Amino acid sequence: MPRTICVCVEWLSAEQREHIRSVSANLGFQVEFFMPGEEEAAKDCLQRAEVLLGHSPELLAAAGPQLQWYCCTFAGVDPYCSNPSLFANPNCLLTNSSGCYDETIAEHILMATFMLLRRIPAYQRITQARGWDNQLPIRSIREVNICVLGAGNIGSAYASKALALGARPIIGVSRSGRARAPFSHVFAIDQLDEVLPSTDVLAMALPGTPQTAHILDARRIALLPERAVVINVGRGSAIDQQALIAALENGHLGGAALDVMTPEPLPADDPLWDAPNVFLTPHVSGNMTMGWTRTRCVELFCEDLHNFATGRPLARLVDRTLGY
Amino acid sequence: MPRTICVCVEWLSAEQREHIRSVSANLGFQVEFFMPGEEEAAKDCLQRAEVLLGHSPELLAAAGPQLQWYCCTFAGVDPYCSNPSLFANPNCLLTNSSGCYDETIAEHILMATFMLLRRIPAYQRITQARGWDNQLPIRSIREVNICVLGAGNIGSAYASKALALGARPIIGVSRSGRARAPFSHVFAIDQLDEVLPSTDVLAMALPGTPQTAHILDARRIALLPERAVVINVGRGSAIDQQALIAALENGHLGGAALDVMTPEPLPADDPLWDAPNVFLTPHVSGNMTMGWTRTRCVELFCEDLHNFATGRPLARLVDRTLGY
Repeated sequence: MPRTICVCVEWLSAEQREHIRSVSANLGFQVEFFMPGEEEAAKDCLQRAEVLLGHSPELLAAAGPQLQWYCCTFAGVDPYCSNPSLFANPNCLLTNSSGCYDETIAEHILMATFMLLRRIPAYQRITQARGWDNQLPIRSIREVNICVLGAGNIGSAYASKALALGARPIIGVSRSGRARAPFSHVFAIDQLDEVLPSTDVLAMALPGTPQTAHILDARRIALLPERAVVINVGRGSAIDQQALIAALENGHLGGAALDVMTPEPLPADDPLWDAPNVFLTPHVSGNMTMGWTRTRCVELFCEDLHNFATGRPLARLVDRTLGY
Repeated sequence: MPRTICVCVEWLSAEQREHIRSVSANLGFQVEFFMPGEEEAAKDCLQRAEVLLGHSPELLAAAGPQLQWYCCTFAGVDPYCSNPSLFANPNCLLTNSSGCYDETIAEHILMATFMLLRRIPAYQRITQARGWDNQLPIRSIREVNICVLGAGNIGSAYASKALALGARPIIGVSRSGRARAPFSHVFAIDQLDEVLPSTDVLAMALPGTPQTAHILDARRIALLPERAVVINVGRGSAIDQQALIAALENGHLGGAALDVMTPEPLPADDPLWDAPNVFLTPHVSGNMTMGWTRTRCVELFCEDLHNFATGRPLARLVDRTLGY
């Protein structure tokens, strides 16, 4: 009996399905495809499947104890790490698809960097009122100090792009503080306070873990220089949102670009909507609506399927105790 | 009697004035500084000055026939080229400061590229209504064909940045069609129609001349593929604005980012404000509010002052018959 792979992803093209099918067949697997919402039809397959490719906790919860590997098409896998009971097999491997989001999220952070340095949120308010004031001070990416909080794949991809555009050397901050290209220096997270006073652009790309919750609080926001700007594409929980709003309102911060916030969706009466110099997007930076990202996601799964079938370590294995 | 330079620029810092003064003194010039609006106080100086650094037609008109060189701090000098009577000395040299705007305008075009490919104007409408739809199709700068219409210093700086971010080879279009780095190919302007059908991002950085007026008209917009986006940082006159609005409204174009338009300021009742997927800025891409741009502008003037004093050709000399 062939080994079974269950795939439950809505955006796969016919070519991409065929690619997965042919790679799997060569490795001795048969693939069954379902759409999210077809959990009932997938029930039988989920009880047989050894490998599952998808992106919902409900889907994973419906899989049987024979599941050896759950490949999540998302980069952030906090819902799975915080809830081990989703895995019928406690030894089931978990991988994320962080590698396919590096480019699109890095492009989003780069765009947000320019938008904040060039005062686009303020200009948008002016043009919404059909005004023509045009003398707001703007800054170049060449003349600011950038710090990336969360120096993983996404943060590194962003730093590489900024450096290619002439940015000054870029500081990274990570749990380990381990040196990593292209950062000129990577500090451990307990040294964050030393880095903030010279940071003009704080780009946050952290996983959602208990350790990162409210890592940017009122005290740390105050350590940033006047007119510093903050970008967050990781998890909204990493920022004390009330403190951020206060710092935008009192003018200490020059702006903030938030693709993630608390809660999501943001309620219509949340004060964040009205904060000055804020650029909000509804959690879109890593959207699967980009062709490049989809192609890459399929490639990464097939690459790790090779690893899985041949008994090699999975490339994007998540440490479920760390949460990423 | 020392030769006189009249400087009438509002943003010079004390250090920048001192720098100009010392470079000038070494070359046998004395400098007198005025602010825009102080034309009455500058009257006597303007009658003696051999060199004038400033940015208003009124200022130039007040200068005497002994003026040998007018250095404009702007990049676009169409008001001077279209009105030769502003020069009391018909042989007066005209230079622009295009070199100091390359970086800031290229950064603006790059930002606009990402904003249009990532559907930010549409997302802004969603978030203005406090909504949370987040599945608009987005594209990477890696997966589109870029064409730069106006392959001068600004267009080249933008192309270099886009290429550094992984963009495909970039086509340039210029009057001469002369090959120029970093473009993979530069076409002459009469070949524009052949380039448009494969252009996803049309970045326009043209000078305002009779030849560039309405160069992008309804017929040429129709040659662009569905969902193509248009960026204009040159002169609003280069686009048939009514045709552009129609193409945005009927969905043929995916978006437009206009830093220049017709007329400026845009009247409050102009239909352009309400066009879908449009990102408007009030002529800010080359603003002197960026420190890097100011520093560079002073450097470029001092460099050409050396050329002027030693009888060498000026580096940024404008051909007043061509208009740039």
